[in-house]
Amino acid sequence: MDPDAVAKAFVDHYYSTFDANRAGLANLYQEGSMLTFEGQKIQGSQNIVAKLTSLPFQQCKHNITTVDCQPSGAGGVLVFVSGTLQLAGEQHALKFSQMFHLMPTPQGSFYVLNDIFRLNYA
Amino acid sequence: MDPDAVAKAFVDHYYSTFDANRAGLANLYQEGSMLTFEGQKIQGSQNIVAKLTSLPFQQCKHNITTVDCQPSGAGGVLVFVSGTLQLAGEQHALKFSQMFHLMPTPQGSFYVLNDIFRLNYA
Repeated sequence: MDPDAVAKAFVDHYYSTFDANRAGLANLYQEGSMLTFEGQKIQGSQNIVAKLTSLPFQQCKHNITTVDCQPSGAGGVLVFVSGTLQLAGEQHALKFSQMFHLMPTPQGSFYVLNDIFRLNYA
Repeated sequence: MDPDAVAKAFVDHYYSTFDANRAGLANLYQEGSMLTFEGQKIQGSQNIVAKLTSLPFQQCKHNITTVDCQPSGAGGVLVFVSGTLQLAGEQHALKFSQMFHLMPTPQGSFYVLNDIFRLNYA
């Protein structure tokens, strides 16, 4: 298991799916998955995707600045991302930081156990 | 185990120790601990503290803006921090984001298994 390759593939897939079809993120999460979004704690794939699809913007585009990763033990991978989020019709992109804790599935893939998102206000 | 209480106590201890006596951080890390500092990967308590004590500034003061935490499985706690770092003699504070993965010790305390630090450039 190459954590860097896992992290890169995950980040590409996650943000392209987020920007094209947020509901498609559902199968990256499971019932025990946790999202903390700007301090709000949400648990479970269905609740997490309900939150993400109800964010008050339709079109957006993530641009990734940095991706760091480390093995977390027990086959998991920690992924730490910084970047910008451009909302349609807004002049300035928003800076954000986000971390994911990916855990292996029996099928040889990964799911998101932990997800913490914060905007970085200037 | 209350992850919020663990995270708060850790963050208070970590940054006050960093600002007062960086070498005192050594006992928070173990041989398997990993630090990624601005993309540079460092492993092991001794190497990590050597990196932190050799940063090109003497006096600094962290101010914490947000602390988010989640249980990571197997008794671990993920801590996600944003804040500013004021260096002595510098007019503007630097914004940063940092994440820690804390794992329990047999003695009932926690150590840092994973630590990822990034400055958030404006």
